[in-house]
Amino acid sequence: MNLVLLDAHEAPADGRLSLDGARARHIIKVLHAAPGDRLRVGIVDGPLGVATVVAVTDTRVELQCQFEGIPPRPLVDLLLALPRPKVLRRLWAQVAALGVGQIILTNAARVERNYFDTHLLDEVAYRPLLIEGLQQARDTHVPKVSVRRQLRVLLEDELDTLCPSGLRLTAHPGAHDSVAGLVRDAVSGPVLLAVGPEGGWTPYELDLLATHGFRSASAGPRTLRSDTACVALLALVHDGAAMRTGLRDERRDEKHQR
Amino acid sequence: MNLVLLDAHEAPADGRLSLDGARARHIIKVLHAAPGDRLRVGIVDGPLGVATVVAVTDTRVELQCQFEGIPPRPLVDLLLALPRPKVLRRLWAQVAALGVGQIILTNAARVERNYFDTHLLDEVAYRPLLIEGLQQARDTHVPKVSVRRQLRVLLEDELDTLCPSGLRLTAHPGAHDSVAGLVRDAVSGPVLLAVGPEGGWTPYELDLLATHGFRSASAGPRTLRSDTACVALLALVHDGAAMRTGLRDERRDEKHQR
Repeated sequence: MNLVLLDAHEAPADGRLSLDGARARHIIKVLHAAPGDRLRVGIVDGPLGVATVVAVTDTRVELQCQFEGIPPRPLVDLLLALPRPKVLRRLWAQVAALGVGQIILTNAARVERNYFDTHLLDEVAYRPLLIEGLQQARDTHVPKVSVRRQLRVLLEDELDTLCPSGLRLTAHPGAHDSVAGLVRDAVSGPVLLAVGPEGGWTPYELDLLATHGFRSASAGPRTLRSDTACVALLALVHDGAAMRTGLRDERRDEKHQR
Repeated sequence: MNLVLLDAHEAPADGRLSLDGARARHIIKVLHAAPGDRLRVGIVDGPLGVATVVAVTDTRVELQCQFEGIPPRPLVDLLLALPRPKVLRRLWAQVAALGVGQIILTNAARVERNYFDTHLLDEVAYRPLLIEGLQQARDTHVPKVSVRRQLRVLLEDELDTLCPSGLRLTAHPGAHDSVAGLVRDAVSGPVLLAVGPEGGWTPYELDLLATHGFRSASAGPRTLRSDTACVALLALVHDGAAMRTGLRDERRDEKHQR
């Protein structure tokens, strides 16, 4: 835990906070915090800050918090064909740690229908996993989650509302352009990344995605399992976006030199 | 399973092969193969090829194989501080799928000593997981695995033999250069990527790595769990290497145009 994340209702008006439960146990038993130590804190969907440990008992920690700015919202949204529950369970925290604004889980021809029965689609089950990922990566933005059981309806009727602008990509091992390259060249704006099921999108689904603005992009010639692919692709999108900033800095430097 | 991988001793002299066991079951029950169907096959550390299904029974498949070229050896080696067993278990197949030439597992100050007791460091335990990853990603190169219990001895006395040349990188959230950028700019040659334990390398270990030629590179500002970091970093190294090829192609095209 690299960040102690607080719910909005826990946010202390005067900066003073008394914690018990799992977070207090972690601070006491794993971080071995003592009075005077400083910890990073954050408020869900709110600012990051620093807390000074005021007092520690066996089960309770008193903190004095000071909050600063709200971190930028992740610029990537994920459209993910629902993976099997075992994989989904692993992905929640990893995806939140890598940083996504929203996760849209969808049906696809190669998604087995019973995957939708998993309790891992209940907010009480996945939210703690998302929070775990945010506490790992020091972010406060909880990804917005939605579940759509009809890919066609999602693409035709709902996606432009959920993700009104930006670059839309779907990963395909044979594609000519690279994921990071397309993101970099888009210069600015959000990215919506579509990741298919084990076995891939069908040709019909790929056509449908293309009709709705998704460009095929390659993350290399190897076929990856969908959880591995998801992590790899999110890393490449974030890297492409970081290269944009690098390019902007270079252009600005060039202007200064003129 | 996107590739049926055969051990060297199974390699058919006349191209004819009779399979039973897990691979045959997968071909029959999951792929629903019928006579005339074609499957991708490969020989461990050898060539890829295509097999035509000749006959299928309840438990056995007869194949006629034709082998082609040996895929290129992955250009990335991984120096990984031994993760906890649960994470290691997940990583074997993912790392093999992403493509690494060798995996050197090492001790570090923040690796718990008992992690070395896991049966997952026995070849009988990890080899099937590596094979699973190769069958997913259609590669035949089984990563060479070695385990080193002393980081300092490894770096000072052994690493130049294990990885004699190439770019050495270690990931650090605060670093100025990006992983993919450094790999791209190195133009050619292998890459050795060092990934630290949960909690990171100590300052002493970072100094030691720097002394032995490791450059710090960033994969973004977020602190990731070591399994997520491993997948993300390998994706970025491979992407950087693919950009090298792209740049070479562009330069060649420019030459042609002159």
